[in-house]
Amino acid sequence: MIKLFEYNWQVRKDWFEWCAAVSHEELMKQRTGGIGYILPTLYHIVAVEYGWICGGILQNPIEIPAFGEIPSLKQIEQFSERCHSELAPFVYGWNDSLEDRIMIDITDEGESVPHPYGEVMRHVIAHEIHHIGQLSVWSREIGKKPVTANLIGRGLYGVTNGDSQGL
Amino acid sequence: MIKLFEYNWQVRKDWFEWCAAVSHEELMKQRTGGIGYILPTLYHIVAVEYGWICGGILQNPIEIPAFGEIPSLKQIEQFSERCHSELAPFVYGWNDSLEDRIMIDITDEGESVPHPYGEVMRHVIAHEIHHIGQLSVWSREIGKKPVTANLIGRGLYGVTNGDSQGL
Repeated sequence: MIKLFEYNWQVRKDWFEWCAAVSHEELMKQRTGGIGYILPTLYHIVAVEYGWICGGILQNPIEIPAFGEIPSLKQIEQFSERCHSELAPFVYGWNDSLEDRIMIDITDEGESVPHPYGEVMRHVIAHEIHHIGQLSVWSREIGKKPVTANLIGRGLYGVTNGDSQGL
Repeated sequence: MIKLFEYNWQVRKDWFEWCAAVSHEELMKQRTGGIGYILPTLYHIVAVEYGWICGGILQNPIEIPAFGEIPSLKQIEQFSERCHSELAPFVYGWNDSLEDRIMIDITDEGESVPHPYGEVMRHVIAHEIHHIGQLSVWSREIGKKPVTANLIGRGLYGVTNGDSQGL
């Protein structure tokens, strides 16, 4: 579980760096699919991870600013760092005994829906990778090479190794 | 580990159904980003999963047909089923003792590169989700709703539950 979160955080950091070399206009240009804009996609990824883990599982009082309140790359990065520092200890403390614990999600319709922690955590992992896949298409539309999505070769397992059958 | 593979297989099946309602011309139209075409992306997802698990980890003699040999949706689905039946027993037999076992990958340059099984398995998981994210953008370009990428609500944990903070 932890490795896939680490992968996502590393990829997200790479995308923030990628964004720094792209004009704000491109980051806020409307595009087809997903959230429809590059920077709001990164905001959305952060907000969803934070909402499910800190708000949902940990039941911390959380405050998620609207995108319009933090509309710059720098502000989204700071938002990501703030959320990360609050949720990372839980992720790094993950163990199998947490798999089947239940959190209760209250839907917009007021319905209480139970979710095992393991389901929530994997939902969050898949959510980020999926949206990053969308960024990779938009990147090519701009004519820029996207951040690599390869998990192998990122040094997550101690060695920065090659990848002959990569993405 | 198993749940994320099950998620990918379920999502892949949903995309095959999605494809069945789209013209072959659309499935083979060149697009921006990733593999550049919808059907070859699904072929690529299957081939990479099969290559790493059956060829790499299990060291089975594997045969991966070129896309041109199986260029129809039906043939890609059959290819996926064939690969799945060969690799699924290994995935379902996954346990923590396999995490740090090492497979040796021989790169195109003839270099031997060691990878822990756990790294390979997570690479394969992230690989599929990433490419599916690309399909979701192309789907909107065609004007069609993509398959949901939500992990919550798929019944993977026994209950088909709602999702108030979904993708």
